[in-house]
Amino acid sequence: MEPDTSSDARGQVFRCWSAQGGSRPLTVAGAQGSWFWDHDGNRYLDLASQLVNVNLGHRHPRLLAAVTEQAASLCTVGPHFSNDTRDRLARLIAERAPGDLDRVFFTNGGTEANEHAVRMAKLSTGRSKVLTAYRSYHGATSGSITLTGDPRRWPNEPGLPGVVHFFGPYAYRTAFHARDEQQECERALGHLEEVFRMEGPHTVAAVLLETVVGTNGVLVPPDGYLQGVRDLCDRYGALLICDEVMVGFGRIGEWFAVDAWHVTPDLITFAKGVNSGYVPLGGVIVSERVAAAFEDRVYPGGLTYSGHPLACAPGIATIEVFEETGLLAHVRRLGREVMAPALEKMAARHPSVGEVRGRGLFWAIELVRDRETREPLVPFNAAGAEARPMAEVMDACVAGGVWPMCQMNRVHLAPPLVITEEELRRGLEAVDAALDTADAYATR
Amino acid sequence: MEPDTSSDARGQVFRCWSAQGGSRPLTVAGAQGSWFWDHDGNRYLDLASQLVNVNLGHRHPRLLAAVTEQAASLCTVGPHFSNDTRDRLARLIAERAPGDLDRVFFTNGGTEANEHAVRMAKLSTGRSKVLTAYRSYHGATSGSITLTGDPRRWPNEPGLPGVVHFFGPYAYRTAFHARDEQQECERALGHLEEVFRMEGPHTVAAVLLETVVGTNGVLVPPDGYLQGVRDLCDRYGALLICDEVMVGFGRIGEWFAVDAWHVTPDLITFAKGVNSGYVPLGGVIVSERVAAAFEDRVYPGGLTYSGHPLACAPGIATIEVFEETGLLAHVRRLGREVMAPALEKMAARHPSVGEVRGRGLFWAIELVRDRETREPLVPFNAAGAEARPMAEVMDACVAGGVWPMCQMNRVHLAPPLVITEEELRRGLEAVDAALDTADAYATR
Repeated sequence: MEPDTSSDARGQVFRCWSAQGGSRPLTVAGAQGSWFWDHDGNRYLDLASQLVNVNLGHRHPRLLAAVTEQAASLCTVGPHFSNDTRDRLARLIAERAPGDLDRVFFTNGGTEANEHAVRMAKLSTGRSKVLTAYRSYHGATSGSITLTGDPRRWPNEPGLPGVVHFFGPYAYRTAFHARDEQQECERALGHLEEVFRMEGPHTVAAVLLETVVGTNGVLVPPDGYLQGVRDLCDRYGALLICDEVMVGFGRIGEWFAVDAWHVTPDLITFAKGVNSGYVPLGGVIVSERVAAAFEDRVYPGGLTYSGHPLACAPGIATIEVFEETGLLAHVRRLGREVMAPALEKMAARHPSVGEVRGRGLFWAIELVRDRETREPLVPFNAAGAEARPMAEVMDACVAGGVWPMCQMNRVHLAPPLVITEEELRRGLEAVDAALDTADAYATR
Repeated sequence: MEPDTSSDARGQVFRCWSAQGGSRPLTVAGAQGSWFWDHDGNRYLDLASQLVNVNLGHRHPRLLAAVTEQAASLCTVGPHFSNDTRDRLARLIAERAPGDLDRVFFTNGGTEANEHAVRMAKLSTGRSKVLTAYRSYHGATSGSITLTGDPRRWPNEPGLPGVVHFFGPYAYRTAFHARDEQQECERALGHLEEVFRMEGPHTVAAVLLETVVGTNGVLVPPDGYLQGVRDLCDRYGALLICDEVMVGFGRIGEWFAVDAWHVTPDLITFAKGVNSGYVPLGGVIVSERVAAAFEDRVYPGGLTYSGHPLACAPGIATIEVFEETGLLAHVRRLGREVMAPALEKMAARHPSVGEVRGRGLFWAIELVRDRETREPLVPFNAAGAEARPMAEVMDACVAGGVWPMCQMNRVHLAPPLVITEEELRRGLEAVDAALDTADAYATR
């Protein structure tokens, strides 16, 4: 383009997951802790941690110091060299990961982490298929968008061969005609085993799932489900890959969400919370068993910024802050003592609330038109006018000074883990008030 | 793993493109300008700019200031918001990109850039196939590794459907029995048109190629080739995507390598040099024509860190440094007055040098056992003992205090663009001396 001629108010940024002709999004001018603001001084409580990544909040002094000190020493170094900062973060992660998950392959983010985890699974087992869940999101590169089980993959098909989708447990909208959580769990496991049998168990390299399903509904697995999947994988010689891009690093009050159910996968993928996204970083935690397959054989994958020192430095600081401040306990306490009771109260007060669910600081409010039929407030994958009721809920939240994440017929709440009890209570009050908008559409 | 028990000298890092049981790579302790060093104080002149990314050298004060200042203000913000730093870098890039390439979709690196460029091409044309070159590298995620035309894709096949490889021009090892560069160019274009015809021109969404082929040999296209490909794309309604992950942002002395041949693609992908890799960043520069296809239709792709402010800030500083210091002219002058004559002298002195080629500060020395037969010093895709002669050349370079990039039978030279004439001359002398090792294998 010619310099100095553009006065296009939309600017030159081609935007993610958007029609480019849409309205320009809010410009974020600055942020601090659990808050961000625009150029007009409007302040918002960040109940989504941006995209569930700013776990330690904005401008955390320890993370900033780590970035600044590392920058002064060495910003970047190729992955064909070693580097102490990278080594140290890998060690800190391995020490906190369950079982023999002792090696870390670093990437720039979650989608690459899932791409590489699946590659490791296929090559180490010599099998070609991967089973993943409907109602899942695993990233936007060609492999990960195929692995994804939600509508975001539709425009990107046909994708990578060898991906098969199954139904996971979701008691509120059961695919298995289950009467309760325990039956849902049993039937979901039976269904997954049937998929194994129909696909040919010897062809299945891995089951990949989000330990707690994220943007597809904050679906917390019933007790026994993850262990059941682990057992199925063991029975059929497949690997278990847990996608903890959203829930790893404290989101539900555990280092890794699998810890809540004492299950050890073969591979864990992470990103976001590892360093609160201050610098792009993700990775795969690899078990010794999987790593052994590449002891003498070249692992055929890599990237220029694998283990980028400037990204790893705030990762180290993140782990230190968690431990020095007892942050995991803080998350569990806020979840149990503040989030859960406040959301139960909203469910009682608002006829539009079908279900609230979550754990730690990761929750969803599922909105319905009718509590009996459970008809969602807006249809599955609604857009435009059909999605209007949810847009009104979001607008009401924003007007009330809070910024949650609205997905389909749900309001997701995933504030920074460092949020104070007072901030959280204030935010939940604003959400409570905003739900009046949804009630207008609901049968009383 | 249990804390405090590991004494594994290899550490916990799972390494890229490696057998994990191999020897631990050199630990880089620090770096400055065109140099890096280990913990024992051994200093190396970085003739590869790490992985052809540290274009402005290590610890450039302007880039460090940009990182530090941005960190203090706002490290990260979701892609669903706007941000001034992101907007400004997009505008600066669009102003320097050719033709109507006025929009920028930001990613974390080159592989994601190519994934998204191909997606934009497929969706905007409604066609399913992409033609890419043998002897190319486009990244390691599922789509990009399929697009790649070198052996790195082999262990990752079958990959994404719809990728077809063609032969590009490579006069020294012509696939077309051509007698000179001009005939190579004509025949390569004839071959590409034949591939179009055989694949069904109406099925081809895009031709994707590296403007100057990078790790597969620094293959500079003969004059007329890129324009010929552009004409073929126009004739058949396909888009032209130029991968400038390595060569964009000054590597050959132009903002974008296509500028050297006055060709305007529909999409340019970039990464590396945009901010010297201080923070992971890449992207796609999108023409207005392609962007228009997504004016009212949602672009189905995105990533948490698209347009990450901390990554964009040193990108802005990079463009300012280029312009304030006349860096493009510096690169052209060093290429013409220092690199080219020094490499010609090496070619004359060493019987192992088959060809030297390059432009700006991007060069390859192709090593052979016999100048008549052009038998390469090591076989195509050699590993282990077969690759020993090249390992000896690399060892000799390292012993001489320089760190080039050795690929197959070639030594690639891609120093930081800020290298001084004196540093470059000193580095080239060390490479010259190291080539004696290769001469021992060559017919005199």
